[in-house]
Amino acid sequence: MSDVEMLAKRVLQACEERGLKLATAESCTGGMIAAAITDLAGASNVLERGFVTYSNEAKVEMLGVSPQTLGTRGAVSEETALEMAAGALAHSRADIAVSVTGVAGPGGGTAEKPVGLVWFGLAVKGKEPRAQKRLFTGTRGQVRSESVATALSLMLEVSQERAP
Amino acid sequence: MSDVEMLAKRVLQACEERGLKLATAESCTGGMIAAAITDLAGASNVLERGFVTYSNEAKVEMLGVSPQTLGTRGAVSEETALEMAAGALAHSRADIAVSVTGVAGPGGGTAEKPVGLVWFGLAVKGKEPRAQKRLFTGTRGQVRSESVATALSLMLEVSQERAP
Repeated sequence: MSDVEMLAKRVLQACEERGLKLATAESCTGGMIAAAITDLAGASNVLERGFVTYSNEAKVEMLGVSPQTLGTRGAVSEETALEMAAGALAHSRADIAVSVTGVAGPGGGTAEKPVGLVWFGLAVKGKEPRAQKRLFTGTRGQVRSESVATALSLMLEVSQERAP
Repeated sequence: MSDVEMLAKRVLQACEERGLKLATAESCTGGMIAAAITDLAGASNVLERGFVTYSNEAKVEMLGVSPQTLGTRGAVSEETALEMAAGALAHSRADIAVSVTGVAGPGGGTAEKPVGLVWFGLAVKGKEPRAQKRLFTGTRGQVRSESVATALSLMLEVSQERAP
């Protein structure tokens, strides 16, 4: 069993025990987090919905990310990750929403935002959303699967914080 | 290279050549189709957005599927597949939308709708949406990956119909 499979299983179990529902807002992972969770039987009790917001228009229209944030901070930024996670929570019936936006490569990197830079957002009902950044190395595939593992770890952490 | 990878590559190429954008509406595949397309560099030119509508509420709220259709026909039905695909087209800026709704198993099967039954919808701008059904055998993983390959094949077919 891969790390991602193991993490997805633990997330599913923690959420099932606590009756928590999840939503995902994915840019560079493009559906992989939702796919990892729904690989498991019983996922329908936990994954409420997922947003694959690959284009800027999708981030604005599906999640309510502000065009101004995208214009001034860019799609790969702390602010966009926060607005994506908060938007996924607001536009779903989930208790926890995770967002991922990064430069998976091989193209698209800049000095300021290199390939491998990924921002994660986490929104939990009744709490301020928070974000964190990671810089991964490797191929597009490696950046994406490290991003999935990180997003699942973040969801696992907050789902375990809640009393069952 | 797996079948899915090869198909995704051909879909991406056909859409890039013709300037076509895609949207996905996934229930039982839970993000796998969008993930397969975004595995490829250059996917941002083609995948406009994806809807992972695992719950009935998500199908209604994200895609405009009618609660009456879900109530009378069920989530795994020709009518729901058609409404999901049409809804993904209407709620995106894509030219082609594919939908998938099925019983991936291992639970959830009935005599009328056994494990492995999957409905696919395909909506193309300016055309009537159409649907088709498949009955796959095997594990949850096999039903899901066969579903991804079928959805990609459907998208490939219609994207190649358009003049480049």
